Amino acid sequence: MAIRKPRIGIIGSGAIGGFYGLMLARAGFDVHFLLRSEYDVVRERGLKLEHAVHGMLQMQVNAYASAADMPPCDWLLVGAKSTSNVELAPLIVQAATADAKVVLLQNGLGVEEQLRVALPGNLHLLGGLCFICVNRQAPGVIRHQALGAVNLGYHSGPAEDGGAAIVAAGAGLFRAASVESQPMANLAQARWQKLVWNVPYNGLSVLLGASTAPLMAADESRDLIQALMAEVVQGAAACGYELPAGYAEQLFRMTEQMPDYWPSMYHDHAQQRPLELQAIYAEPIARAGAAGCSLPRMQMLYQALAFIDRANRAG
Amino acid sequence: MAIRKPRIGIIGSGAIGGFYGLMLARAGFDVHFLLRSEYDVVRERGLKLEHAVHGMLQMQVNAYASAADMPPCDWLLVGAKSTSNVELAPLIVQAATADAKVVLLQNGLGVEEQLRVALPGNLHLLGGLCFICVNRQAPGVIRHQALGAVNLGYHSGPAEDGGAAIVAAGAGLFRAASVESQPMANLAQARWQKLVWNVPYNGLSVLLGASTAPLMAADESRDLIQALMAEVVQGAAACGYELPAGYAEQLFRMTEQMPDYWPSMYHDHAQQRPLELQAIYAEPIARAGAAGCSLPRMQMLYQALAFIDRANRAG
Repeated sequence: MAIRKPRIGIIGSGAIGGFYGLMLARAGFDVHFLLRSEYDVVRERGLKLEHAVHGMLQMQVNAYASAADMPPCDWLLVGAKSTSNVELAPLIVQAATADAKVVLLQNGLGVEEQLRVALPGNLHLLGGLCFICVNRQAPGVIRHQALGAVNLGYHSGPAEDGGAAIVAAGAGLFRAASVESQPMANLAQARWQKLVWNVPYNGLSVLLGASTAPLMAADESRDLIQALMAEVVQGAAACGYELPAGYAEQLFRMTEQMPDYWPSMYHDHAQQRPLELQAIYAEPIARAGAAGCSLPRMQMLYQALAFIDRANRAG
Repeated sequence: MAIRKPRIGIIGSGAIGGFYGLMLARAGFDVHFLLRSEYDVVRERGLKLEHAVHGMLQMQVNAYASAADMPPCDWLLVGAKSTSNVELAPLIVQAATADAKVVLLQNGLGVEEQLRVALPGNLHLLGGLCFICVNRQAPGVIRHQALGAVNLGYHSGPAEDGGAAIVAAGAGLFRAASVESQPMANLAQARWQKLVWNVPYNGLSVLLGASTAPLMAADESRDLIQALMAEVVQGAAACGYELPAGYAEQLFRMTEQMPDYWPSMYHDHAQQRPLELQAIYAEPIARAGAAGCSLPRMQMLYQALAFIDRANRAG
């Protein structure tokens, strides 16, 4: 009996969507990319990925300017910014099979909840946390610097086993495409854990105009990064998520050993796109606050970034 | 009996030294300016002040490139940055009469202590707090936007009455030059009070690249300014200085009504000069810390500014 390979749709083909979509296409999956500003370029020249391990990959891909033109997809990987989640739901629905699995490849808290209310109940919703250094170099051109894992957790939908089988199937897809992937038993805790990295490095890259190497080189920024990490751990604990002992220290050491990296928020800022402040800062601060825990440094970073974001939007 | 008008020396003739020196010279005092990079320009063209109330003032002045060439001065007004205090003492001594009064027109904590150890015991040391919006437009050209008071407090020296008579004489000099001036009974408390303005506005102007008007226009920066002000008030209290009730709120409202203003630290940053971080941030944080009071937002602002200052010095 021939089983049809699952069809995969990529919603938002920036660095993240482009990278994973291309890796899956390269592995022989039937992948379809929904694009906006890059549609013309990608349709003509395909996607190009400079992969740190596999070298240069260039492929013609199935590119669409409209979700209505896409064939029904079994899996939808959402790589678009969390700032546009409310607008994404109708596009996802148009490109989805009746029992599609939607994987939100975004950082921060509350992103699934935001999307869930706008999705029909028959769709499965998963969260995917990407541990990767990747950025968009030019329209249709992606540069991968290091790492690459996507860990998956089931958020909500019609699965009866808590989504374990679906998560395992999703992890299998990624692994078949040479991408590491682990199931996450507790998505909410995993999202807090990921914030331990995103909160300091994303925000400080914008505020100080600095990539990871200089941030890790100066005593003052090292101390500040560690203080911000400690606040995230404290906020998580207040919300009931005890992160593994030594986790922040481990991320700090990992970042010292990474190639010099400009976090995605820096690129958003440099291109005057909206910053993902709600999911990465406002929501965790609000949740910790509701649990009686104030996070003054994180709040200050959020206020400073909100000021910058406002100026970007104004001009 | 003819009493010689006191001779006044100005050490460091940027915006502050230039403004007060010129106002005193205009009022007929015998004023002598020690200059560095601006010596040639000022010697040739004099000093020019665009005064918000009195209009354009331009005067030839007594300019010196070396303190050794200055006549002995009864009063020395020090307008140089607090980052260079250790280098200033020998220059002050060279330009001082045997019982000269040295007035430190600088912001922050610990500036008198830093200078005192390098000054001979016969010199009187006063602190002067300037409430003024003024900046240097070009070499020898100063623009005054608003306010102007200098309040004086006695720090240390041979005075037997706690310095009250000297402070009164100093305030008299300024008033004779149409500059408001009040004696301050408690210099240490007054320095904490002044920090309530300097800590938020100086630092945020650098960090967010914004002058007072946009900082006072956005909710996030308003909240952050008020949180930083509250920390300064808290730090002062921990060190034994209860600031007047409503003082922070009053400065906040005053700033709303000021003309749009770029604080001095912004100009230092823009011109890649050293930032006055020790006196305005590190010293108050350390003193509050020694009293068991942590100031997380102020500490974070300091760490961020120290990172920026380091980058400025490097390149």
